[in-house]
Amino acid sequence: MKVLRNGKERDIKSVWYDRKRNEVCYIDQRKLPFDLEIYRATSLEENVRAIREMVVRGAPAIGMSAAWTLCQAAVNGKDLDDCSGALLSSRPTARDLSYYVELITAKKMSVGEILEYCLKLERDQIERCKRIGLAGEELIEDGSTLLTHCNAGALATVDWGTALAPMRAARSKSVDFHVLVDETRPRLQGAKLTAWELEMEGIPYTVIADNAAGYYMKKGEVDLVITGADRITSKGYVANKIGTYEKAVVAKENGVPFYVAAPVSTFDLNMDDEDQIPIEMRGAEEMKRIEGVRIFSEDAPTANPAFDVTPARYISGYITENGILAVDEIKAFGGSSRP
Amino acid sequence: MKVLRNGKERDIKSVWYDRKRNEVCYIDQRKLPFDLEIYRATSLEENVRAIREMVVRGAPAIGMSAAWTLCQAAVNGKDLDDCSGALLSSRPTARDLSYYVELITAKKMSVGEILEYCLKLERDQIERCKRIGLAGEELIEDGSTLLTHCNAGALATVDWGTALAPMRAARSKSVDFHVLVDETRPRLQGAKLTAWELEMEGIPYTVIADNAAGYYMKKGEVDLVITGADRITSKGYVANKIGTYEKAVVAKENGVPFYVAAPVSTFDLNMDDEDQIPIEMRGAEEMKRIEGVRIFSEDAPTANPAFDVTPARYISGYITENGILAVDEIKAFGGSSRP
Repeated sequence: MKVLRNGKERDIKSVWYDRKRNEVCYIDQRKLPFDLEIYRATSLEENVRAIREMVVRGAPAIGMSAAWTLCQAAVNGKDLDDCSGALLSSRPTARDLSYYVELITAKKMSVGEILEYCLKLERDQIERCKRIGLAGEELIEDGSTLLTHCNAGALATVDWGTALAPMRAARSKSVDFHVLVDETRPRLQGAKLTAWELEMEGIPYTVIADNAAGYYMKKGEVDLVITGADRITSKGYVANKIGTYEKAVVAKENGVPFYVAAPVSTFDLNMDDEDQIPIEMRGAEEMKRIEGVRIFSEDAPTANPAFDVTPARYISGYITENGILAVDEIKAFGGSSRP
Repeated sequence: MKVLRNGKERDIKSVWYDRKRNEVCYIDQRKLPFDLEIYRATSLEENVRAIREMVVRGAPAIGMSAAWTLCQAAVNGKDLDDCSGALLSSRPTARDLSYYVELITAKKMSVGEILEYCLKLERDQIERCKRIGLAGEELIEDGSTLLTHCNAGALATVDWGTALAPMRAARSKSVDFHVLVDETRPRLQGAKLTAWELEMEGIPYTVIADNAAGYYMKKGEVDLVITGADRITSKGYVANKIGTYEKAVVAKENGVPFYVAAPVSTFDLNMDDEDQIPIEMRGAEEMKRIEGVRIFSEDAPTANPAFDVTPARYISGYITENGILAVDEIKAFGGSSRP
């Protein structure tokens, strides 16, 4: 993705492996948009912390982070099955985490083979995101306004993004559009990360409170909603950032097309229904403090589900590297085309 | 309302007139829940600032603040018509502001008469809120979970509240219920003010991100939604805190009853449709800073509508001092029963 660092334009990934130093490197997403810092993990523990504490987040990026963690572990002569357990329990909702762990541990590979395979997975994920962009780009009309929730951008994948990939593709063809960005409480990934990415890409945007999305939809000022996904079941239920469900319901009520963008690695054909999807409950501090500052009473009881599930009936289509799919096409593509 | 100050339980109003010192006194709602401070206004300018900068907020409380401001102006020998203009332009959406200004300026009164009339208005508003509580209390069943948005409590009125009045009434009858409190970005009136009021009243509650309301409604864990209102048109359109519309749509989708609580002073029979209601757009700083701390980029473009409008078809009933009304009863009661 395009970033400005020390006044210079650079092209970096959200997560990569520094082979020379044997470090898994992450853009520290907790520090954006204020600081562009790189978090360098040298051990399983540091990688697991990066995932759990959301140095890196977004289902495909978490998946690739797990792959690089296993690669590093292999280089360090660790037992990959031991490492897999710690990785799999780091965050529960994202499908891609277990998908990538399974890919790497499915067959016995040498250290060199794992490294080559991870590089292939990385190229593959970037390529798939580009194809998501090309598939979704046709939905973005000149003069239109889009709404997105949370961050499903390059930061949430290795590069390009899922929901933001069609926007990058449309931008590259000089399509003129505007993006309303839900700030996405409690962690503000919209206001912090999506806004930052759109700024870097030169795509016009406006940050709104999550509460205001319905206001703009009802006024007829939103032409299209695109979000990402953390897990998609065979029946098309979509687990994604908390609040996605509300936006989807209100979009349907107002006749606004609502698309979900994800690589097929996010499809989980082992699950059919919504109650099978594990929903991560996160801590109170994430709600009560921003930038280290207390924003309401320490004593107030809170509940902090990090994801919700949107049924297929609210979803106009699934934008994937295999094109825009209808719900009944999910089974044909889920788990397919492994690299 | 019941408050704890310096370890002692006290009973105070959100706004009152200190006759001896000729000061309009406000609980400074910008400081809650961390500090309970009183803002004392000695001039029209200080009162207008209190309303505009949200020392006081909530339609009925703003109305009574305007009444006391005019009373103070009369004591100070000012021209009430001049003062009315400044008050009316302080915030555009709340109906009660103009309602109370009209009540006081409609006929020529002496200073003493204005003071007596304001005291009567104050008693009257408290009494109406109590009656809202008694009317709505029957909706709250033992073992149920309610959801509320923003703060429509004692702080938003002189005392008792609108949406929170039925909860206070149910609590006094030992009904066992739980309240989910939307934090209500951008100003967090739910997490800060409603949570504080419920804490003081000993009513069990849980603060959630606005994005999580739909999650709990879809899980079947919300039995009833009650919000306040800033203005209600003759056709039952409700202007209320941004996000109310989304909650109402999602409540309807999930078969959750959605009630609006307000005194009939909030009814505005001069307006029928939603596009007649002025919606206040507030500044970016309210979104970008919390407790003085910058939470996302200063450079990010933002839009900050403070209210939205919910059509009557999403509203199960209007809880008023005259009972729970259906939409076709609004015209019969709006503007009626002036004190």
